[in-house]
Amino acid sequence: MSSTGTSTPAGGLDLSLLKITRNPAPGVLPPSNTLVFGQTPTDHMLTVEWNLGTGFEAPEIKPYGPLSLDPSASVLHYSTTMFEGMKAYKDKNGVARLFRPNKNMERFNDGAARMGFPAVDGEVFTELIKKLVDVDEHWIPTDPGCSLYIRPTMIGTKAGLGVTASTSVLLYVILSPAGPYYASGRKPISLLASTEHTRAFPGGTGNRKFGLNYAGGIVPQTQAAKLGYNQILWLLGERHMLTEVGMMNLFVSFRRPDGTVELVTPPLADLILPGVTRDSVLCLARAHADPTTPFRIAGFPEKLVVSERELYMSDLVAAQANGTLAEIFGTGTAAILLAVERIGYMNSDLKIPTGADGMGPLATALLREIEGRQIGEIESEWSVIV
Amino acid sequence: MSSTGTSTPAGGLDLSLLKITRNPAPGVLPPSNTLVFGQTPTDHMLTVEWNLGTGFEAPEIKPYGPLSLDPSASVLHYSTTMFEGMKAYKDKNGVARLFRPNKNMERFNDGAARMGFPAVDGEVFTELIKKLVDVDEHWIPTDPGCSLYIRPTMIGTKAGLGVTASTSVLLYVILSPAGPYYASGRKPISLLASTEHTRAFPGGTGNRKFGLNYAGGIVPQTQAAKLGYNQILWLLGERHMLTEVGMMNLFVSFRRPDGTVELVTPPLADLILPGVTRDSVLCLARAHADPTTPFRIAGFPEKLVVSERELYMSDLVAAQANGTLAEIFGTGTAAILLAVERIGYMNSDLKIPTGADGMGPLATALLREIEGRQIGEIESEWSVIV
Repeated sequence: MSSTGTSTPAGGLDLSLLKITRNPAPGVLPPSNTLVFGQTPTDHMLTVEWNLGTGFEAPEIKPYGPLSLDPSASVLHYSTTMFEGMKAYKDKNGVARLFRPNKNMERFNDGAARMGFPAVDGEVFTELIKKLVDVDEHWIPTDPGCSLYIRPTMIGTKAGLGVTASTSVLLYVILSPAGPYYASGRKPISLLASTEHTRAFPGGTGNRKFGLNYAGGIVPQTQAAKLGYNQILWLLGERHMLTEVGMMNLFVSFRRPDGTVELVTPPLADLILPGVTRDSVLCLARAHADPTTPFRIAGFPEKLVVSERELYMSDLVAAQANGTLAEIFGTGTAAILLAVERIGYMNSDLKIPTGADGMGPLATALLREIEGRQIGEIESEWSVIV
Repeated sequence: MSSTGTSTPAGGLDLSLLKITRNPAPGVLPPSNTLVFGQTPTDHMLTVEWNLGTGFEAPEIKPYGPLSLDPSASVLHYSTTMFEGMKAYKDKNGVARLFRPNKNMERFNDGAARMGFPAVDGEVFTELIKKLVDVDEHWIPTDPGCSLYIRPTMIGTKAGLGVTASTSVLLYVILSPAGPYYASGRKPISLLASTEHTRAFPGGTGNRKFGLNYAGGIVPQTQAAKLGYNQILWLLGERHMLTEVGMMNLFVSFRRPDGTVELVTPPLADLILPGVTRDSVLCLARAHADPTTPFRIAGFPEKLVVSERELYMSDLVAAQANGTLAEIFGTGTAAILLAVERIGYMNSDLKIPTGADGMGPLATALLREIEGRQIGEIESEWSVIV
């Protein structure tokens, strides 16, 4: 058992204690074109209980089924919940692969510290996730653009209504086979720039994968959909600083006078989720931009400059007006990458260039590179064999 | 069945369908001095399921016990949870009373609309809560300062990982006998003014009783306790605007040159929880201040001016330095009213006047008036007989 890397309390996660109880009535993977995101649980789940003092109990893989929670459990009243989003893919040899699981483990433990939850040994937790994926391996769809979505979750289970750090938690992982995120496929999306609702703010926890960052967005999202927009473009403050796109990180590219393309994403601070896909895009774009590395993003011959800097709606409006706005896209584990074609802002619509097939050249090239690495068609250290 | 007041979907809350299953092994109310806030469930709970389309099912009062939730339930991933805090008291005739339940119902429905949850008929829900309190009536402690804490809760139970409005919810109510909120009794508290963490922000949901407003405060609160402070004083923005005190509303009083006392609390906007105790303090203070009403707060002979206005740390520092700072206190259902004696700010401590017995004259008079009304010693429309 490895116990390095993160600080664990007495009783760290122990792979050697894993107990597997097979589902006596296993299900069948539905056809990919019938899959709705996150709606199809697989046969099994992983659960590990933790208590202050005794630490983590033995991990269990067991049939997917309901959790039993005290009606006063911390998560039900004070939203002590955090999660991760990961995916498993099958390569052309039928081997299951994860994508950069170490990044998810880093973020999970950063979040745990902020939530007052125990740290988990990221290497052991990854091994446990691999075991779960292995047990439900026949649930990984193999059609193009499909994967098995993995949802590691940690919830505060302490009974009692005092608002204090939860002295017991449940760490668990569930799986759900996923088709392409949007039923419409890779069609570019429209955004409503919200001047009314705010997702994250300085001094808050918008940079964490906490459940609490999502509940407040549900009604605004419903309102945006009624107005004909796919997602919310989240702004901050009176200057309308751009932060995130629905549940994705935001990228904007500009064509500069010297002929180069500047790819911009807002800096993390405590506002922006450190997305694994965001980081992957930045890594690829920076390598492409760096003349001392041989790497170039296939299919994108132009020179790139990469910036993490603040962006305001006035920047978009100006660039759109003077023709220097090149592309806008969102990135996230569930959707990978989606181009934006239209932004509703202050009662008018800003048209965004998207290219002939609905996705600009940089977005297209980045998506191909990342998907290639995820399914193992392009060799990289990012792909980890289950 | 009443169905007026709030908009309800098909299948509103129906009191006539209430089913009561008695706990076969009822417990015994522990001695008041052993009670820890929210740690002692009573014998029963109220549950009502709701589904989009069919509306609310029959309400049930049944033995307190665990809830069964799908591992992908909305509340566990996206923090779709909201609650209320209320109390039942026994008057000197042994009659159980609630305090201004209509205010809790108003706030509950405001929150439900913002969360994408169904509205409840506030009158019917209050009747259901009365039934529950009646069934567990022997759990209301009668020692001074004691009460039965009531926790109405609504959680999103929809299974599935898409971030959408929950198409099924569980409305439930649990009870817990409560001694005085703080073990230390009515001793004044100390606050750490946080310049690092923010509780609420413009465009957010800080004015709702949502679980999501609480999780982010747990670690800051733990850090403040380690530094010797009882609670966090939540500030906003670079000018350090005062918002709330831990889980209470904030009141500050100043002595003005004309000899009157100004009682100030921050305006609600979308930052401040519309506390029932906050509203009660404002109602009492405004009636006291109004020369056209006969009401005066007993034991407080001074002239009052009441303001809902923004307050900044610089206001407190200046008033403390020039001797015009009179009192600071927090209000909330759980604690009712607690005086503040010390605020840690920018590495130094601001001493706040508290009077000889640890609570200033206005706080003392307000607490006596509100407690008197809660337990029915002072006749008022605010007290509602169960």
